[in-house]
Amino acid sequence: MRELELLAHVYKANPDLPGSVSIPPGDDMGAIEVGGTMLLVTVDQVADGVHFDLTDTPREKIGRKSITRNLSDVAAMAAKPVGAVAAACLPKGYGEGRAKALFDAMRRTAEAYGCPLIGGDIATWDQRMILTVTVFAEPAGIEPVLRNGAKVGDTVYVTGTLGGSIEKLSERDGYVHHLDFEPRIDLARKLAGDPVTRPTAMLDLSDGLAQDLTRICERSNVGARIEVDRLPISQAALTAAKKSGKPAWHHALGDGEDYELCFTASTLNIPSRIDGVPISEVGKIVKKESGPAIEAVLANGEQVDIQDLGWEHRD
Amino acid sequence: MRELELLAHVYKANPDLPGSVSIPPGDDMGAIEVGGTMLLVTVDQVADGVHFDLTDTPREKIGRKSITRNLSDVAAMAAKPVGAVAAACLPKGYGEGRAKALFDAMRRTAEAYGCPLIGGDIATWDQRMILTVTVFAEPAGIEPVLRNGAKVGDTVYVTGTLGGSIEKLSERDGYVHHLDFEPRIDLARKLAGDPVTRPTAMLDLSDGLAQDLTRICERSNVGARIEVDRLPISQAALTAAKKSGKPAWHHALGDGEDYELCFTASTLNIPSRIDGVPISEVGKIVKKESGPAIEAVLANGEQVDIQDLGWEHRD
Repeated sequence: MRELELLAHVYKANPDLPGSVSIPPGDDMGAIEVGGTMLLVTVDQVADGVHFDLTDTPREKIGRKSITRNLSDVAAMAAKPVGAVAAACLPKGYGEGRAKALFDAMRRTAEAYGCPLIGGDIATWDQRMILTVTVFAEPAGIEPVLRNGAKVGDTVYVTGTLGGSIEKLSERDGYVHHLDFEPRIDLARKLAGDPVTRPTAMLDLSDGLAQDLTRICERSNVGARIEVDRLPISQAALTAAKKSGKPAWHHALGDGEDYELCFTASTLNIPSRIDGVPISEVGKIVKKESGPAIEAVLANGEQVDIQDLGWEHRD
Repeated sequence: MRELELLAHVYKANPDLPGSVSIPPGDDMGAIEVGGTMLLVTVDQVADGVHFDLTDTPREKIGRKSITRNLSDVAAMAAKPVGAVAAACLPKGYGEGRAKALFDAMRRTAEAYGCPLIGGDIATWDQRMILTVTVFAEPAGIEPVLRNGAKVGDTVYVTGTLGGSIEKLSERDGYVHHLDFEPRIDLARKLAGDPVTRPTAMLDLSDGLAQDLTRICERSNVGARIEVDRLPISQAALTAAKKSGKPAWHHALGDGEDYELCFTASTLNIPSRIDGVPISEVGKIVKKESGPAIEAVLANGEQVDIQDLGWEHRD
């Protein structure tokens, strides 16, 4: 089942959400008003066999990812993280020493982003490991950027490079993007805090550009045209393409867990780089037509089929 | 491993928590300051095979418990719930219809307590069901009651009746306490909001009175003497005693998942009932001695052995 469908159900069943809910379910974070302040909240799970493989992933990286996945949602709203709580169900026999190392990695990662871990729940069971982290954030002077503001004529941008997030590029440094990515919090706040560059819509890329941009389109009631030759192809996407025999743009459009930002803006005055991170123009927001929300074209204007891209979490 | 030990580790490793953390890990909820407001947060998991049995528990009750377990923590702080997020890892093949019914039960329960569900994360996997809920709360005019304020001479009280929470009392109404309990939010706020009755320390009973009162003693650096003949024995504890052959007070002291409040107060002016819920005096806070923090005595003053009570979650 698609997460989106079930969340949409929760949302639709909630026509009478109280006035304290300022951002309802369906965006990267929900928000409620608490004591006159907007509080943004996101929750994410990382599960053994779904989001990592316990047998070959260092526990420091598991702990880190459980936090950074959430921080990528904070970035998607251009918010500022303020705190976190963590829950863990650990396989029986995992051992207290390893559990402590895991929690230390979570705590250190959270604190490095100004997001102290203030509580948790721990259980053990005869099943696989699952970590669930909730992060809360505040606007801190910058109005959150939602998914629903894209307008026909807007340009579509992405940060960083895309594709192949599960590829290990070098045995030496062991960098694997889906574990080691950097949440784009500062970059997002710079973009959204400046009226010249403020995005009209934004989210973070967890399920692949084609699928995630579809979400912006659905919420904004528009379509999008992607120029596949403009996609910033990652080194890892090239590696993945070599293995799969598919073009590298296929991986850049369809692979999940990029944790880069995708945003739309009415201006072309977006810097090509912020804090060293490249920002690429990859397409345009167009009128909504019947059929798929996203179309992909080559540089010569020829349309390419992207119906077989659909990346879903391994569920 | 004991949850407390691991959380204590996270806490101890955190001597330099930022000033924004007003209640560090180790209480029923942590708290941070957000925009000049105190935000309280708790997270709890309910896992198939640990906290419920999927094969014989109606999904409405599973959904309800995933919310009320957290709300019991909110009650323990005398706070007011303001919102929640939920994460679910569902077994493959669970089916969208059943997932929706489960989330509806979570949503309805949360809303009934003024706690709208504003976001979530859903995945499926080849393991058992686990639901993780994070609830946010605010003091709303009543300073949170912590675990560390019990003083020698204080009286120990509990709400409701204790023991046997997993017993089904009647096939007809199907009430099973650990699934159907009522979080004591209103009662806690009435107690804590009145200077005459305000508790010096409070928590909710999840692991059994003996173990949970030990937590108040450890945080408050005191001991406690329980008079077992004063314990409010539940009907279910009597049923459990019939099966186990142990005295009913044994179940009232040792069984988990009562989700009643245990609190200490310097006054004897505690009403015997609030909103129809009985409140019972069950013991005294005494000086800390070497050895176990809790001792239990019969009406004649004779000490009884409670070393074999230690209830732990089935981990």
